[in-house]
Amino acid sequence: MTVFSRIIAGEIPCYKVAEDDRYFAFLDINPLNWGHTLVVPKHETDYIFDLDDEDFAGMTIFAKKVAAGIKKATGCRKVAMAVLGLEVPHAHIHLVPINQEGDMNFARKIQNPDPGRMAEIAAAISDNLE
Amino acid sequence: MTVFSRIIAGEIPCYKVAEDDRYFAFLDINPLNWGHTLVVPKHETDYIFDLDDEDFAGMTIFAKKVAAGIKKATGCRKVAMAVLGLEVPHAHIHLVPINQEGDMNFARKIQNPDPGRMAEIAAAISDNLE
Repeated sequence: MTVFSRIIAGEIPCYKVAEDDRYFAFLDINPLNWGHTLVVPKHETDYIFDLDDEDFAGMTIFAKKVAAGIKKATGCRKVAMAVLGLEVPHAHIHLVPINQEGDMNFARKIQNPDPGRMAEIAAAISDNLE
Repeated sequence: MTVFSRIIAGEIPCYKVAEDDRYFAFLDINPLNWGHTLVVPKHETDYIFDLDDEDFAGMTIFAKKVAAGIKKATGCRKVAMAVLGLEVPHAHIHLVPINQEGDMNFARKIQNPDPGRMAEIAAAISDNLE
């Protein structure tokens, strides 16, 4: 069971942003920028491109909805998207609010993000979902 | 007209990998790794999340097919995906073959990639598409 499955199951706490029957979104605990969110399939799959076309497309459309909420909640220029997939063996899309290229830098994370601010941002994104 | 539209129109040369009626894939001229490919919609759109759901999902599924070709052609561990979107105002998905985290680093590009090797890789990816 991956750490993300344990988050989905409620065994590990998270700043939840959204969920439906197939996908789940929550704040990255080591954000590159405030509002950095992870989107994962509830069904455990390591490599995102192993999802079948319908499930993969569903996941990206779910991510698109969450990205719209992030943009409204943070006022960023754009929401960037990244899938790396070598750390946790459970496919996840990073959604990162960016204002300039350098905001998308996996070597530069916010250290020990303030829990109060994280909770506020998760709620703000959630409130801005359509 | 964006530089990508000029590439699609054949006005600017590229190492083409794939196309269908709606999407186009070609090698990034400043690759992070050999086989680094860009997927773009033929219809000029700046922000990827401004595509409607059907068009956005179609683009990601097209990218998934190209990613499978990249994986077969390069033998990489995984193909990473990124959308930044602040440079060229024409939505594009980066597909980057990776073997370790550090391979996905936009600050570390292959300088002046050898044209012969680029042509070979584009052909190999294209040959490995299903």
